Amino acid sequence: MARTQGSHSDITGPRVREAALRLFATHGYAAVSMRQIAGEVGVQAGALYNYTPDKQSLLFDLMKGHMDDLLAARAAEPGPDDPLAALEGFTRFHIRFHHDRPDEVFISYMELRNLSPENFKEIEGLRRSYEDQLEAILRRGVAIGAFDVAEPKIAAMAVIAMLNGVNTWFREGGRLSLPQIEQLHWDMVRKAVSAPEPPNHG
Amino acid sequence: MARTQGSHSDITGPRVREAALRLFATHGYAAVSMRQIAGEVGVQAGALYNYTPDKQSLLFDLMKGHMDDLLAARAAEPGPDDPLAALEGFTRFHIRFHHDRPDEVFISYMELRNLSPENFKEIEGLRRSYEDQLEAILRRGVAIGAFDVAEPKIAAMAVIAMLNGVNTWFREGGRLSLPQIEQLHWDMVRKAVSAPEPPNHG
Repeated sequence: MARTQGSHSDITGPRVREAALRLFATHGYAAVSMRQIAGEVGVQAGALYNYTPDKQSLLFDLMKGHMDDLLAARAAEPGPDDPLAALEGFTRFHIRFHHDRPDEVFISYMELRNLSPENFKEIEGLRRSYEDQLEAILRRGVAIGAFDVAEPKIAAMAVIAMLNGVNTWFREGGRLSLPQIEQLHWDMVRKAVSAPEPPNHG
Repeated sequence: MARTQGSHSDITGPRVREAALRLFATHGYAAVSMRQIAGEVGVQAGALYNYTPDKQSLLFDLMKGHMDDLLAARAAEPGPDDPLAALEGFTRFHIRFHHDRPDEVFISYMELRNLSPENFKEIEGLRRSYEDQLEAILRRGVAIGAFDVAEPKIAAMAVIAMLNGVNTWFREGGRLSLPQIEQLHWDMVRKAVSAPEPPNHG
């Protein structure tokens, strides 16, 4: 993706992306025009092309930015060797990271169909590399007998789907806090992959 | 919702709904015009209003139809008294039912934001009554010591989210068949809600 010079160096670029994110999440990519995005930012439609070559590039930048942030945040957390501790870390990280970014999560799922084939392939690759991290934790746990998982790849996708669910219904101020929700999900994930007789940890 | 007379009695009504479903799933509700739907069906835009008062009614009919079908199909399956057997029945039913309706599932999640407040409330109510069925199974299992679930409502939503994940990635002809995917998910659901020492069944 060619980037127009200067898109990183001033404050309008980020404002364009924020406006696009908000509008795509509210109305859907296909229903939003470049003119509308320009209106949100407060620039002429023509000026928008100083920041992005087209609407597809904006969508791709948003989705790639989200995946890059996810992978960078994940890489910044110390990954314990112990598979059970690593799985707990992944579970809690996933819920917290996504809870803070509802619009990005929503468009990342919903607008995959609107990516060009080459852009889709790149986003899918990033997504897979994230899933692979969880799969690797599960495989390590299976190898030492801590987990009983017949298909680590399927289990990884099932766990991520379960954790993604939180984003669709959780609202602050309800009966349960996010840390409580996190704990309840960790209990289920831990049990879902557990070996019949858990090994001693500690 | 007022229905225009005759929308059930001929074949154009269903064709209008099919076209709307396909177009909404492909482009998103906000991006699709009544004119486009009429074009797909092969009628004049004005004729569409013989079948539906407006685009919002079409969306609502599709989402309500999907939930009505779900609840009717569920009601038609014999629900075993044993909570473990009931949970297995729910899990397998959910995966199979939704696998057959990818477009309906997609718009039911994605287009909630485009429902009018009163329509949203009705769809949410139907959705809740489905979740309540799973929650009731979990509570019955907890009551007899078969399940260990601290928050049956949260667990119900987590299980449904996990099962919904299948729809986002499963394709026929891959390494694993749908019955295999069903079995793997049932194994995880069963373990996720299991009591520390499973009671004897049988």
